Amino acid sequence: MGIDPGVASTGFGVVLVDGATMHAADGGVIEAPAGERTEDRLARIHEALAELLAEHEPAAVALEDVYFGRNARSAIAVGQSRGVALLAAAAAGVSCFDYTPQVVKMAVCGSGAATKQQVQRMVGLLLRLSGPPRSDHAADALAVAICHASHSRSAEALDAGRRGVPVR
Amino acid sequence: MGIDPGVASTGFGVVLVDGATMHAADGGVIEAPAGERTEDRLARIHEALAELLAEHEPAAVALEDVYFGRNARSAIAVGQSRGVALLAAAAAGVSCFDYTPQVVKMAVCGSGAATKQQVQRMVGLLLRLSGPPRSDHAADALAVAICHASHSRSAEALDAGRRGVPVR
Repeated sequence: MGIDPGVASTGFGVVLVDGATMHAADGGVIEAPAGERTEDRLARIHEALAELLAEHEPAAVALEDVYFGRNARSAIAVGQSRGVALLAAAAAGVSCFDYTPQVVKMAVCGSGAATKQQVQRMVGLLLRLSGPPRSDHAADALAVAICHASHSRSAEALDAGRRGVPVR
Repeated sequence: MGIDPGVASTGFGVVLVDGATMHAADGGVIEAPAGERTEDRLARIHEALAELLAEHEPAAVALEDVYFGRNARSAIAVGQSRGVALLAAAAAGVSCFDYTPQVVKMAVCGSGAATKQQVQRMVGLLLRLSGPPRSDHAADALAVAICHASHSRSAEALDAGRRGVPVR
């Protein structure tokens, strides 16, 4: 299960691996309306993720490492959402893994410099959807889930350095 | 109740207001060992704060606004801890308020440019402790709790601009 934690919109995507193929079991966006207090928005994100984790019982949670290119204010806000996402995973007994944007793009498009549009297109193709996911956040969550699934599948054939790192 | 969210050490402090005087009902540090996975450390912080909120039933939770002077990596980490703290407050039905470090120093020491040592000394004096709190994190949490208590008490006599702002 991939999660793209955000303030107003948190993407999620569940990828099932069946041998050499993958498909999407679920995907979408948890909306936390701007008019609400931050603590209530976080509670809404936490509750929705807890329900999804209980429903899908994923083998792992994968998140995109978002340390780069953000100012401190937006980093704090995204960190708060990451915090409740990680908490929901911990309560469900699911381990969490971070992947850098470059590693995600490489896994999905074969290039660490792929554009957002390329990633969305490849997510649609790899998961046999009728088109790219409509939501950017769901696409990003599915992409990091695909990335984790690919790396887990090929982990023994690859050097350990290309695997996701446990969340710091 | 003041909270100083951190990665390894999260400070907390509970201040009781009785007319013109204040005293400390509780204060200390929640430790989250570095060896554990991030999601388990966050779960530990969340559980301890939930217990403290249930025990003390505070009127509000106050946090220091930490947007300034941090790099994105540490901001994400602090944001994650803030996220689980805010979530615990939301579950307990307690509203959260942010104060800038300058406003906290002004409320505790009478100067927005007060040093860390001054703040610790004044926390000890204002709360009639036998000395400054031993832990920096507990002192910071007690300081922001004092700040919120002072502002709430005098809110009607002051302009609204000096009150804490709901957490963004």
